Amino acid sequence: MRAPDPRPSREGGGLFADLYELTMMRAYAALGMEAEAVFSLFVRKLPPERNFLIACGLEEVLDEIEHFHFSPEDILYLRGLKRFPDDFLENLRRFRFSGDIFALPEGTPFFADEPILEVRAPIGQAQALETLILNRIGLQTMLASKAWRVVTAAGGRQVVDFGARRAQGADAAVRGARAFAVAGVEATSLLAAGARYNLPLAGTMAHSFVEAFSSEAEAFAAFAELFPRTVLLVDTYDTLQGVRNAIRVARQLGPDRRPMGVRLDSGDLLGLSRSARGLLDAAGLQDMKIVASGGLDETKIDALVKDGAPIDIFGIGTEMSVSGDAPSLDISYKLTEYGGAGRMKLSPGKMTLPGQKQVFRRGAGGTAIGDVIARADESLPGTPLLEPVMRGGRRIAPPADLSVLQAAAKKAIAALPAERRILAPAPTPFPVVASPRLAAEAEALRARLASGRGAASATPP
Amino acid sequence: MRAPDPRPSREGGGLFADLYELTMMRAYAALGMEAEAVFSLFVRKLPPERNFLIACGLEEVLDEIEHFHFSPEDILYLRGLKRFPDDFLENLRRFRFSGDIFALPEGTPFFADEPILEVRAPIGQAQALETLILNRIGLQTMLASKAWRVVTAAGGRQVVDFGARRAQGADAAVRGARAFAVAGVEATSLLAAGARYNLPLAGTMAHSFVEAFSSEAEAFAAFAELFPRTVLLVDTYDTLQGVRNAIRVARQLGPDRRPMGVRLDSGDLLGLSRSARGLLDAAGLQDMKIVASGGLDETKIDALVKDGAPIDIFGIGTEMSVSGDAPSLDISYKLTEYGGAGRMKLSPGKMTLPGQKQVFRRGAGGTAIGDVIARADESLPGTPLLEPVMRGGRRIAPPADLSVLQAAAKKAIAALPAERRILAPAPTPFPVVASPRLAAEAEALRARLASGRGAASATPP
Repeated sequence: MRAPDPRPSREGGGLFADLYELTMMRAYAALGMEAEAVFSLFVRKLPPERNFLIACGLEEVLDEIEHFHFSPEDILYLRGLKRFPDDFLENLRRFRFSGDIFALPEGTPFFADEPILEVRAPIGQAQALETLILNRIGLQTMLASKAWRVVTAAGGRQVVDFGARRAQGADAAVRGARAFAVAGVEATSLLAAGARYNLPLAGTMAHSFVEAFSSEAEAFAAFAELFPRTVLLVDTYDTLQGVRNAIRVARQLGPDRRPMGVRLDSGDLLGLSRSARGLLDAAGLQDMKIVASGGLDETKIDALVKDGAPIDIFGIGTEMSVSGDAPSLDISYKLTEYGGAGRMKLSPGKMTLPGQKQVFRRGAGGTAIGDVIARADESLPGTPLLEPVMRGGRRIAPPADLSVLQAAAKKAIAALPAERRILAPAPTPFPVVASPRLAAEAEALRARLASGRGAASATPP
Repeated sequence: MRAPDPRPSREGGGLFADLYELTMMRAYAALGMEAEAVFSLFVRKLPPERNFLIACGLEEVLDEIEHFHFSPEDILYLRGLKRFPDDFLENLRRFRFSGDIFALPEGTPFFADEPILEVRAPIGQAQALETLILNRIGLQTMLASKAWRVVTAAGGRQVVDFGARRAQGADAAVRGARAFAVAGVEATSLLAAGARYNLPLAGTMAHSFVEAFSSEAEAFAAFAELFPRTVLLVDTYDTLQGVRNAIRVARQLGPDRRPMGVRLDSGDLLGLSRSARGLLDAAGLQDMKIVASGGLDETKIDALVKDGAPIDIFGIGTEMSVSGDAPSLDISYKLTEYGGAGRMKLSPGKMTLPGQKQVFRRGAGGTAIGDVIARADESLPGTPLLEPVMRGGRRIAPPADLSVLQAAAKKAIAALPAERRILAPAPTPFPVVASPRLAAEAEALRARLASGRGAASATPP
């Protein structure tokens, strides 16, 4: 798989920001507030059916941050708003991100409240990236986390992505295919995703093709003749008659060119897959595979697999592409430090941990047993998860190959305790605690802010 | 509001198609199957909480269809797949859509099984657009339909879109803002959407801004000084203290420049809005408004409005941006005619209606009382809903202004019966029936296909 195309999509330019980000930048500029800030990206609460989330989308957002700028057309638009003075807009023309970024490598499993990415930069710059970072990392993290469940339910059977038509936009379809690949999905039906990420492609035929012929048998014969080793869609009129028609074509074409399988797309997939398998086997076509699709999600796949349905490949669309049971993440990008001092908000249920941080994952016998969120300069037992990925606005390493990310995700997830690596919710949350120093600093700052004394000297620089 | 930018996004080119679309095109080309087909776009089943859906996204997808082509890079990629012969790829270079399209105008409410768009074109061309049309119309229709519920719950109070950060991708954020506008949302926070569609912008300040100062009062004073008539975010530390700080700033700045309101983003929005209103009124600031945000959806807004919460503006993010309760539509694009003969599939629960069609909406006293799905050449009582929008691959009329679409949607929805125009599910489905002729043709074709006689001469050309 090749590296992603580094050009940001046209939606991803400097205007992929909320108005308030520019308003605040303007205020910081006017007030001469150019000190460094730290912003931290984290998920406040996991969706009910997730034992962990998988960090995803980093490589792409780093490319977009490197190229983040305001084009002459962007400046013209902003000028037309009559909200910003000319000198501010002139400076925006030269805007380039010059800060540092630390992040979990893609594929790393993580839990609620853990920083997955931190930005250290002059406050206006760090603020400018808020919407971009939330949108980009949020989408791929959500989709990779969902796809892992689908792949896990399939228990070693192939999973292919058929979801482009139902994804929430073209961007979600293309980037979704990437996130699915990181989580172990083997192929995509979407050409744009295959081209952009060099992913394996999958696809068979539509009902429309069968319907366009005067009979299903005729459609199958024509298609199989043109495309050796294809998959025939058998449920347009009568599924088992469709299997019989596929068998006839397979016999005519012989072992080298005959279809590699049949696809079931409706009805009782358990019963039909058994009957189809029976017909294929009785015809001596044991090597022909059964592909199933049509409204599948991890729960339905899990039931089919547990019932022993003889399905070899699952084609998954809608539910994986929109993360149907959890179509958003409670993901936030919050200021945690400014001018060397910790910052936090006290809004009910929305407290944040101050300062730049690190997450240490402790293990025993190769299994992760708990995480400690600490200040970035602490040295604690365990593996530090956040790594420097951008320095002075330039990425530190070239983008990793997607196959490397897929292998890394597999390995990191395998190190989680067994009760986390299943579909059912684990009985207790994975242990995540703040280090004593971080906890003490957070409490001191909270008390200081609650008493109205302000943040400025609450934590040592 | 200006017309959308006609350039397709880079994800929207010829490769925004599933592999099987090209495979089938190749087969049709090889077999000389170039007769006209009709494909019909419809939603099989409405989500449980929707009494109707709002057609949306048409103008944009027409632009993309007009520009749909395969670039030299696309052809190079396809060649590398080694699945397609050179002559087919050479012809793809010249691919342009040359067919006709009929569709519901944007903003039209519709129901299950009703065609919302039909394509008549040589079968390979019509097939090529499947993924593009489903993705584009599906997204905006889903989001406009959700946004209408939010706007309705707000009962005349302003609704503004704060959702870009949580939308499923940049494309969903930008196009979502458009769909929201069609459904009556008044402004967006996303600059890229404001620029593309000339939408009003909305935005206040983030908690980070307040936290970057040594006190909230100082942050408010600085921001309000720079931005007359702004909105101050008051819940960073202690909401009512925040309101008092905002009042102090308002008094200092005087009526012309003082903040136009305060924003509450957490906690008990009913109680806090009442207390905040009380404090503002007691300070003689009756004209300062209250903006509420933070995890809102139509159900929460409805409860707040019914409880009389003194909230003037609702800022809505996640739940509207991903259509949280129904993040996908059961939308399909199906062959209904080829070579002049009706086509359908018989898959369980997935039967389709043959031929090119029209929908007649019957009314009584200005209220819609039922729809009839008919063949396109029937003349029945009621208003025909599908209009020609593209002929010979060129759109018939220039894109309508978004404000026109917004007004059209409002008017068309107002003509629905009152029990459909509320949040609660209506007791019975809206009456939608097939015309006697369509029903007879569908049954004749079904019987013919079920008996294995094939579609070819089932319906008259």
